[in-house]
Amino acid sequence: MKPISLADKLARFSTHWDPHVVADYNGNDVMVVKFQGEFPFHLHENTDDFFLVLDGEMAMDIDDQSHIVKTGELFIVPKGVTHRPRAQKECHVLLIEPKGVPNTGDPTTAAPKPRI
Amino acid sequence: MKPISLADKLARFSTHWDPHVVADYNGNDVMVVKFQGEFPFHLHENTDDFFLVLDGEMAMDIDDQSHIVKTGELFIVPKGVTHRPRAQKECHVLLIEPKGVPNTGDPTTAAPKPRI
Repeated sequence: MKPISLADKLARFSTHWDPHVVADYNGNDVMVVKFQGEFPFHLHENTDDFFLVLDGEMAMDIDDQSHIVKTGELFIVPKGVTHRPRAQKECHVLLIEPKGVPNTGDPTTAAPKPRI
Repeated sequence: MKPISLADKLARFSTHWDPHVVADYNGNDVMVVKFQGEFPFHLHENTDDFFLVLDGEMAMDIDDQSHIVKTGELFIVPKGVTHRPRAQKECHVLLIEPKGVPNTGDPTTAAPKPRI
């Protein structure tokens, strides 16, 4: 039980699309992640997906719409909705997903989500 | 499904210890709240409590320890742990709790958590 600096955690890795767990909340992984480039379109059948932009700007593509999400903005993708996060420049994001959820929607391609 | 500016939501009320729901995540209320002064010591028997400081600085008192939590810092109080948030100056916080959880730990004294 102590304060967790998200900036300090983000300074500890440089890889993109590589979420790192910083805390637990009721069986959810609370993660920081760096986005740059384009992630595959995917969906999570059984969970919403929580994104809070900490620094920079991302796009969330859903169907034929692209939502720009800026620093200090939250975007929650409801379960079952196909989506693609994307960022032209590096963007830092707080991500929350239940433990065991593959970030790609597919366990065979999912990132390992190490704890830092 | 759209981006939610936490600053815009925070600008819509001025009351303290009065969480406002801005989004849903898997049965949780995602809320913004303004702290100033001292909240009562309380606990949540069945849920962790998620605090992310968006602006300002708060203290989280637990037993005889006081943890200072600054902008960009996360503090998660595990379920069953008695705690007291406190802030000398106004502090803006992102709060996540399961729907129906009384913010004071007691339904008779809990804030209503309106949606904005």
